[in-house]
Amino acid sequence: MHRETDRDLRDRAKKVLPNGVYGHQSTALLPGAYPQFFSKAKGAYLWDADGNKYLDFMCAYGPNLLGYADERVNKAAIEQLARGDAMTGPSSLMVELAEVMVDMVSHADWAMFCKNGTDATTMAKTIARAQTDRRVILVAAGAYHGSAPWCTPRPAGVIADDRAFVETYEYNNIESLESAVAAAGDDLAAVFAAPFKHDAFTAQALPDPAYAQRARALCDETGAMLIVDDIRAGFRLARDCSWEAIGVRPDLSTWGKSFANGLPISALLGADRARKGAASIYATGSFWFSAVPMAAALETLKILRETDYLEHIVRLGDYLREGLDEAASKAGLPFNQTGPVQMPLFLFDDDPDFRIGFAWSEAMLRRGIYVHPWHNMFFCQAMSEHDMDLTITAAIEAFEDVKHNMQTLEPHPVVAKMVSS
Amino acid sequence: MHRETDRDLRDRAKKVLPNGVYGHQSTALLPGAYPQFFSKAKGAYLWDADGNKYLDFMCAYGPNLLGYADERVNKAAIEQLARGDAMTGPSSLMVELAEVMVDMVSHADWAMFCKNGTDATTMAKTIARAQTDRRVILVAAGAYHGSAPWCTPRPAGVIADDRAFVETYEYNNIESLESAVAAAGDDLAAVFAAPFKHDAFTAQALPDPAYAQRARALCDETGAMLIVDDIRAGFRLARDCSWEAIGVRPDLSTWGKSFANGLPISALLGADRARKGAASIYATGSFWFSAVPMAAALETLKILRETDYLEHIVRLGDYLREGLDEAASKAGLPFNQTGPVQMPLFLFDDDPDFRIGFAWSEAMLRRGIYVHPWHNMFFCQAMSEHDMDLTITAAIEAFEDVKHNMQTLEPHPVVAKMVSS
Repeated sequence: MHRETDRDLRDRAKKVLPNGVYGHQSTALLPGAYPQFFSKAKGAYLWDADGNKYLDFMCAYGPNLLGYADERVNKAAIEQLARGDAMTGPSSLMVELAEVMVDMVSHADWAMFCKNGTDATTMAKTIARAQTDRRVILVAAGAYHGSAPWCTPRPAGVIADDRAFVETYEYNNIESLESAVAAAGDDLAAVFAAPFKHDAFTAQALPDPAYAQRARALCDETGAMLIVDDIRAGFRLARDCSWEAIGVRPDLSTWGKSFANGLPISALLGADRARKGAASIYATGSFWFSAVPMAAALETLKILRETDYLEHIVRLGDYLREGLDEAASKAGLPFNQTGPVQMPLFLFDDDPDFRIGFAWSEAMLRRGIYVHPWHNMFFCQAMSEHDMDLTITAAIEAFEDVKHNMQTLEPHPVVAKMVSS
Repeated sequence: MHRETDRDLRDRAKKVLPNGVYGHQSTALLPGAYPQFFSKAKGAYLWDADGNKYLDFMCAYGPNLLGYADERVNKAAIEQLARGDAMTGPSSLMVELAEVMVDMVSHADWAMFCKNGTDATTMAKTIARAQTDRRVILVAAGAYHGSAPWCTPRPAGVIADDRAFVETYEYNNIESLESAVAAAGDDLAAVFAAPFKHDAFTAQALPDPAYAQRARALCDETGAMLIVDDIRAGFRLARDCSWEAIGVRPDLSTWGKSFANGLPISALLGADRARKGAASIYATGSFWFSAVPMAAALETLKILRETDYLEHIVRLGDYLREGLDEAASKAGLPFNQTGPVQMPLFLFDDDPDFRIGFAWSEAMLRRGIYVHPWHNMFFCQAMSEHDMDLTITAAIEAFEDVKHNMQTLEPHPVVAKMVSS
C-alpha cells in the first residue's frame, strides 16, 4: 500500500478543504515540524502520516481518557453497532446513561445528550434563558465555551446581534464578577465558569474557592443559573463535577470529549432547579440518540468508577511536574508549569512571542514527545511511569537545545503577528 | 437477561431526562401506541423495547440509507476503530472524503466536516455573512434548518437578537422571494432553500424549477450566497446535490444524516465563490475529524456510486405510491401522498386535526409497519418489493379500520391544541 506523506496530504487538503485543515486541530499555529495528519493511535501513542511515533500529551485534545483504541470500550461499541446505532428512537442505553451520570455527578438530577461540546453550552445558555425568562449571560473574558457564533473566539461571519447580552467578567476576580452581576440587574440569566482557567496562550489558574462560592451565592441571590463548563476537564479532575471538590454545585454542567473515551457524545447535566427550562426548549440532532457512543460511555464510566485511573494520572502528573521542574532548574530556564498536574500547560517566562516555547516543543517532538506550546494538555490512563521518564529525558535534552540556540530563535510568523496585534 | 418494557423505560426516563425523551424522536406528538424505545435494527427493520418488529419507513429520520447495521459499512467502521478514531489531528481519510464528495457533487470545490446538520447550516450562514460582509439570511417560512437558537422551531429560551436579520419568504413563490430580496437591499448575505418543501404537518411540494432558477439569478445579481439544505434529502434524490437535476447549482450545500449510513458525520460543501468566507471563520468540534465516521462515509459513498440503490428506492417508491393510491381509492378515502416517492408524506385531505392520519398510522403500526403521520418518510436500499407488498396489504386493512371507526375518532390532545392555536 502506498502511504501518503504529511506533505502530500497537506497539498491535497489545500485544494478540497478551505485553508487545508480548519479548527482546533489545524497546525497553522504550531511549530513547523508538527505533523498535520495521523495514521494510527493506540494507548498513549500516536503515529503521524509519515510513520513517526509520539507519546501524545494532547489525547485528541481531551477525548482520549483511558487510552486510544481501548479494547474494553471498543468491544462495547462494536457489540452495540451490530444491534443498532442511529435508530428511529433511542435505545434503553439512553436512560441507563442518564441514570449513571446523574448518579455520579452530585449536582445533577437529569441529563440531555448531544454531539458537540458547543451543543451542550448552547443548550445551557438557552435553558438558562428559558428557565429565568432573562437574557444576560456572563462568561469569563478569554474563556472558550465553543465555536457557535455566540461564543466563537474568531469574529468572522459573526454579527453583533449573535453576541447580544453575552457579557464578560474576569475569572477568579470576585469584584469583577460582582460588578458584572450588578450591571446585568434583573436581566441576569446565567454565569458560566470553567472549572479552572484553561485559556489558550496564557498561564492556567486553579479556581479560587472564594470566587466559586461567590458565584454560587450571586446566582442564588439573583435566581440566575450557575453553569460549570466541564467539557475540557470533565472526569480528569474528579469522578463528579470538577467543582464538587471545592464544595460548589452548579445548576447546569456541560460535558463532552472524554466520557465515551473518544466516541462522539456530549451532555448537559442539570439540577431540578433548571428542569422546567430544559423541558421547554427544542434542541435535537440526527445522531444525538445514537446507541453506539452511549454503549461506549457506559463502559468508560464503569471503568472510571472501578479503576484508579484518576489517582494514576494524578500520580504521573505529579511525577512529571517535579521531574520537569528539576530539569528546567538545572538548565537555568524559566519553565512555567500551570494548571492541574494531569492537565498541564508548559510555558516559559519572558517569552512574549512564544519563540522559546515553540523551540522547546519542537525539540520535544523530534524526540517523540507530542506536547503543545500554548494549549493545556491531557493525561490518559494508558500512560506509564516509563512514559514520564522518557518525557523527562527528552526534556533535559530539549532544554539544552533551546539554551544552545537561544540567540538565533525566531518567532512563529503567525503567532508573532497575533501577539503584536 | 431482563428486558425492560417501553413502559418501564418511559417511567425511568421521566426522572432523568427532562420530559422523558426530547427532540425530534420524542413520541409526544405521535399516536399513543407508538413505542418510544428500540432494542434492535437490521436492514429495513426495527424492533421496539417490547420486542415488536416493524418495517421502518423513518430510517432513523434519514440516516439509514442502505439498511441498518449494513455489514459493508460496519466492517469499514470497525477496521478504522482499531486504527484510530478521534486523534490529535485528522487522518488521511478526511482528505479522501473531501475529494470524493467534491467529485460527486457538481457545484462543490471544497468540503468541511462536522457532526450535526445544525453545524452545517450554522456554518453556511456564518460563511455567507463572512464572504459577503452582509447580514440578511432568507429562509422559507416553515422550513426546518436545525435546532440552534437562530433556526429552532420552538422559541423557548431564544431571544429576538438570536433571529436578527433572519427573514422569511414563501417556498416556490417567486414574487415572495423577489420582495424579500428587495427588502434586504444591499444587506443580503444568503438565500436558504430546501431541495423540496418537506415541512412537517403539511403536504410536501417539489421545487418549481422557475423558482430555483430565480433564486440562483437573484443571488448572482446581488452577490448573495445560494444555500441548498440537503441534510434531509441528500443522496436520496441524486448522486449529486438534489438541485442538480433541475440545473441549479448553489454556492453552498449542507449534508448530514445519511452519507455515512448512520454513523455521525455531517458536511458543508462549497464552491470557490464561497471559499474565502469559509477560510475565514472559526468552527470546530471535538469529534469533527474522527476517522471512524469518515471510513463509514467513504464506504457508503462507494456503494452509492457502484450500486443501483437510487433506482431501486425510486422503483419501490413508485410501486408503493401506486399501490396505496389504488387501495385508498377502493376504500373511498382521500389519501394524499406528496413529495418524491422515496421520501413520501402520507396525509388525508379534510383532516385538519390529523385524527384520521393518526388513526391510520396507528393501524399500520399494529400491523408492523412504522409510518409517520406528519413527517416525511425515507426509503432505504434494504427494502424490497415484498416489503412494499406487506405495506400495501396492511394499508388495505388500515383503511378499512379507519372507515369503520371514522365516527368515533378523537384527535391527539397535544396536536389538537397545537393545530387550534
